[in-house]
Amino acid sequence: MNEPSTPIRRLAIIGVGLIGGSTALALRAAGAVSEVVGYGRSRANLERARTLGILDTIAENPGVAVDRADLVLVAVPVGAMREVFAEIAPHLPADAVVTDAGSTKVGVIEAARDGLGEAFSRFVPGHPVAGTEYSGAEAAFSVLFRDRRAILTPVAETTTDAVARVRRFWETCGAGVTVMDAVHHDQVLAATSHLPHVLAYALVDTLARMAEHTEIFEYAAGGFADFTRIASSSPAMWTDIVTANEDALLSVLDDFIADLTTLRMAIAADDREAISDCFERAKAARDRFAEKRR
Amino acid sequence: MNEPSTPIRRLAIIGVGLIGGSTALALRAAGAVSEVVGYGRSRANLERARTLGILDTIAENPGVAVDRADLVLVAVPVGAMREVFAEIAPHLPADAVVTDAGSTKVGVIEAARDGLGEAFSRFVPGHPVAGTEYSGAEAAFSVLFRDRRAILTPVAETTTDAVARVRRFWETCGAGVTVMDAVHHDQVLAATSHLPHVLAYALVDTLARMAEHTEIFEYAAGGFADFTRIASSSPAMWTDIVTANEDALLSVLDDFIADLTTLRMAIAADDREAISDCFERAKAARDRFAEKRR
Repeated sequence: MNEPSTPIRRLAIIGVGLIGGSTALALRAAGAVSEVVGYGRSRANLERARTLGILDTIAENPGVAVDRADLVLVAVPVGAMREVFAEIAPHLPADAVVTDAGSTKVGVIEAARDGLGEAFSRFVPGHPVAGTEYSGAEAAFSVLFRDRRAILTPVAETTTDAVARVRRFWETCGAGVTVMDAVHHDQVLAATSHLPHVLAYALVDTLARMAEHTEIFEYAAGGFADFTRIASSSPAMWTDIVTANEDALLSVLDDFIADLTTLRMAIAADDREAISDCFERAKAARDRFAEKRR
Repeated sequence: MNEPSTPIRRLAIIGVGLIGGSTALALRAAGAVSEVVGYGRSRANLERARTLGILDTIAENPGVAVDRADLVLVAVPVGAMREVFAEIAPHLPADAVVTDAGSTKVGVIEAARDGLGEAFSRFVPGHPVAGTEYSGAEAAFSVLFRDRRAILTPVAETTTDAVARVRRFWETCGAGVTVMDAVHHDQVLAATSHLPHVLAYALVDTLARMAEHTEIFEYAAGGFADFTRIASSSPAMWTDIVTANEDALLSVLDDFIADLTTLRMAIAADDREAISDCFERAKAARDRFAEKRR
């Protein structure tokens, strides 16, 4: 077991993309890891990760990657986690702690419980709330997690030692750590992350299918660029997320569709007061949010 | 009448906010204006504009502002334009050209036709497609229009000389100028600007009214900040815009609600292929848009 001051001896990253790659760069910058081994589906991406100084070693499969590792980060799309857990379970060293970086937590916990066997008590479900619209190892950078939150959602079986080690992992990466219930995590993230992604994808898709779409995009300004930035995120990853967090997402999506339909009616009825009230409430909330982030 | 190389003698700005203030700063930086006089409803904002070097003179009313002006920019919220046109009409010098910066054009043209009388042929409807989420003179900056589009929507009566002078005005501010039909303008902008603003306001309002809203915003990341930035825009200005462009906005809003409802059904049915297809199409369109802006 690591002491608080002991660096990670051997970090295994399964899924060496924006998140996995950025943790390695952050830990290296902090002198907090001796060796990083990685596995992923794309050989070209793994080679690139090695060139970029993210990985020391490329493993041929997930089982080889976790061999002799003391910390394992699973950073694949949430739909691929079940398979990864089953593959690594027989190869996990007895003192290895496992964590993940999935954007949904209830489904990942279920997959880990099924796949990890006795190692499940050393699995700490996690979610670093950080990202860009870019994907892959070449999008990774060492300060991605600085001043961001990492949310951990341990369950009854999770050991306090495992939680402490994963907390230290994210803190060393620069993030502040919050512990909360997995169900609650999925509801909060459905509102602030999953729903906005669905809306951005849906809007761009609606516009792209219009007859004059080439011209439409030509006259789009900075506000549109910001609003639609998240629609450039990985479709595969986000298909996984919305599928995995279906219940919480549909709940807040239905609230939104109802509110939007009410606003539509107010616009059609020229009800300036109702429109203005909605815009005023939104601006006040958005300004408070922006103020806090400063 | 100005020759192409002659600077503006006296620019009158009615509504000295982000747009009006930024034109003055841009023209001054280009040495293209001798005197700037302004009028607006907030005396404090006008004083601030004078301190910031935007205005030389504060006028007591719109009529005084346009006296001896050779170019008049009306940059008030679109709902306030009708009144301004009626107020300035009796005081307009015979060679003065009038333009506006409203985000909708069909309604503004109607108001100008009613209010400007014989000066209507020297009115050039315009829309600089630029902005930030900030309002007022203190948000103004000289390069706001650089590499942006300014759209002009002249009608049959508009003189070619007036169009040429307003084109020069926006080009000197740094914008590229496009001429198009007013109805078409309102449809294109409904899609890329008015609808995104409505969605951003509606989303933040939906979340702000949830029981756990304080916590929800606490775990929002950079993607949420970008997505909701436009919800910090001026509610008064945007209430005017959505009301003024009701028909075009409702048309694209209804398309969007229909597409979003289809996507909601795909999520509820775990139809990964339909979800993924939508996300892929959107990402491809968004990436092409981002590529073009580089």
